[in-house]
Amino acid sequence: MRALAFDGQRAALVERPDPKPSPDEALVRVSLAGVCRTDLELVRGYMAFRGVLGHEFVGRVLDGPAEWRDQRVVGEINFACGRCPTCARGLRRHCPQRRVMGIHEADGAFAEAVRVPVENLHRVPDGVPDERAVFVEPLAAAFEVLAQVEVPAGARALVLGDGKLGLLIAQVLHDAGARVTAIGRHRGKLAVLAARGIETFPGPEFHGERAPIVVEATGTLSGFRRAVELTEPRGTLVLKSTVAAREPLDLAPLVIHEISVVGSRCGPFPPALAALAAGRVDVDPLVSERIPLAHGALALEHAARPGALKVLIDCA
Amino acid sequence: MRALAFDGQRAALVERPDPKPSPDEALVRVSLAGVCRTDLELVRGYMAFRGVLGHEFVGRVLDGPAEWRDQRVVGEINFACGRCPTCARGLRRHCPQRRVMGIHEADGAFAEAVRVPVENLHRVPDGVPDERAVFVEPLAAAFEVLAQVEVPAGARALVLGDGKLGLLIAQVLHDAGARVTAIGRHRGKLAVLAARGIETFPGPEFHGERAPIVVEATGTLSGFRRAVELTEPRGTLVLKSTVAAREPLDLAPLVIHEISVVGSRCGPFPPALAALAAGRVDVDPLVSERIPLAHGALALEHAARPGALKVLIDCA
Repeated sequence: MRALAFDGQRAALVERPDPKPSPDEALVRVSLAGVCRTDLELVRGYMAFRGVLGHEFVGRVLDGPAEWRDQRVVGEINFACGRCPTCARGLRRHCPQRRVMGIHEADGAFAEAVRVPVENLHRVPDGVPDERAVFVEPLAAAFEVLAQVEVPAGARALVLGDGKLGLLIAQVLHDAGARVTAIGRHRGKLAVLAARGIETFPGPEFHGERAPIVVEATGTLSGFRRAVELTEPRGTLVLKSTVAAREPLDLAPLVIHEISVVGSRCGPFPPALAALAAGRVDVDPLVSERIPLAHGALALEHAARPGALKVLIDCA
Repeated sequence: MRALAFDGQRAALVERPDPKPSPDEALVRVSLAGVCRTDLELVRGYMAFRGVLGHEFVGRVLDGPAEWRDQRVVGEINFACGRCPTCARGLRRHCPQRRVMGIHEADGAFAEAVRVPVENLHRVPDGVPDERAVFVEPLAAAFEVLAQVEVPAGARALVLGDGKLGLLIAQVLHDAGARVTAIGRHRGKLAVLAARGIETFPGPEFHGERAPIVVEATGTLSGFRRAVELTEPRGTLVLKSTVAAREPLDLAPLVIHEISVVGSRCGPFPPALAALAAGRVDVDPLVSERIPLAHGALALEHAARPGALKVLIDCA
């Protein structure tokens, strides 16, 4: 099969033997995959990953247990051991022995086929086309905010960052009943939210009131600092982006205002699938372009362009 | 009256007119006051404070509403406006217009007398001598952890730092039923906890298991980093000390392990008074020395010495 693999130097199309699933795995024929910012970081050396890239996908089960065969599926990306104390606590996404599809010790979905543990699979409802189902993984990460933070109806929430994740989180919080203001730098991207009735503010110089819930999704240190300034005393700052401070960072305001910073990563698939099926989240305007797997390396390049949103890779 | 005041250059004993309480204030004759690390920071320029220092005290009401006269009292240090939205939410300690005794726009308790809003006063039970009551303010800050974080019986908790606050927090968590390990650098200080049946570990190279609750009370960036490493996935890191990173600080582990960092400052007085009255927390071994107000500047010097614990100032 063909696959887009990273060898430590560059990402390139390679020919690989078809993966052989073990008894607790399914072999999924990938229809469509999505490029994530993490993929761009992996080809810059993050996680020292080597192998087939890609962890956002939708496809159809080619081989595996009978009840899964021919099902259209998406798959959770953390492959847990299932035996350790962390797994026993129900935190399989945090299993310290986990492999992660296309990120850590497991081949990914920028390929014609991928192996996925059966317990990680979710069926895609008929009403959700591939072009939307491919967003389940990042949308689940947005729903993780609701799994971690109580969002009372009518609560004010600020979302900083109008990248893909910011646009998804703003919609999820809005759908949950929060009064959301999305703050970004791109009028075109914010327009996606305005069309859903979400208040938007273009430019970083937002000087509105502090809010009880603030989500940092800019991926920058300045965004984190701004998020701290915009969080109410005793409020919650959801940290979605892996920020590293290369300059001094004063954590004292967290103590003085008793702010909680909640780190947030992967999330639950079922509410993401349900929201897509019900049309409660609009992902269609988030697609920048669609590129065949044969030009997968180009897809990574395009995804890295300023202003790009989701680049999809056609693997069928 | 005599008072220890900071004029922007140095802290020195001064003669001041007796304070005149307004109708909603009491004039408290101070018996005993405690030196806090914040006092040492104030004389280095923190908050640009000018005035009488001191915010930990016990005393007797000299003048004020009849029902308070001659009562032995301690007092909360945040003087709220009582009218703003933050006060309306019940977060008076976070009132943005607040004055703070001996810290921000209000004279403090290193004096023969101090003005305190009546609503900030708490009566001291007869069974709690001044030498213990003077610890109510820092002990309340330790109880704030219980107000912010759920601590199930038997939960493992690590407390980093064996300064005054760390020793109080470790006792409060232990009393709440947590299985506490206190990690510090001073065997003598940790012995205070060992005597209460609390597990202690001397030295920073603790390599035990991660815990669901970790309290950072070292006041150092390396302590914060260590606390992040020691917090379980989905665990809570209580940040008690106002840490400023002067070197690079990677926040990515908070996201990857979905750790919550809970900033924590001042706390509720009633549980602190109750714990002292019931002997559930031992503050006696935390007193390093007792110095008369006449030598108040010396008290600040001694409190700054390495290894010092609580220095008390006799104001009577």
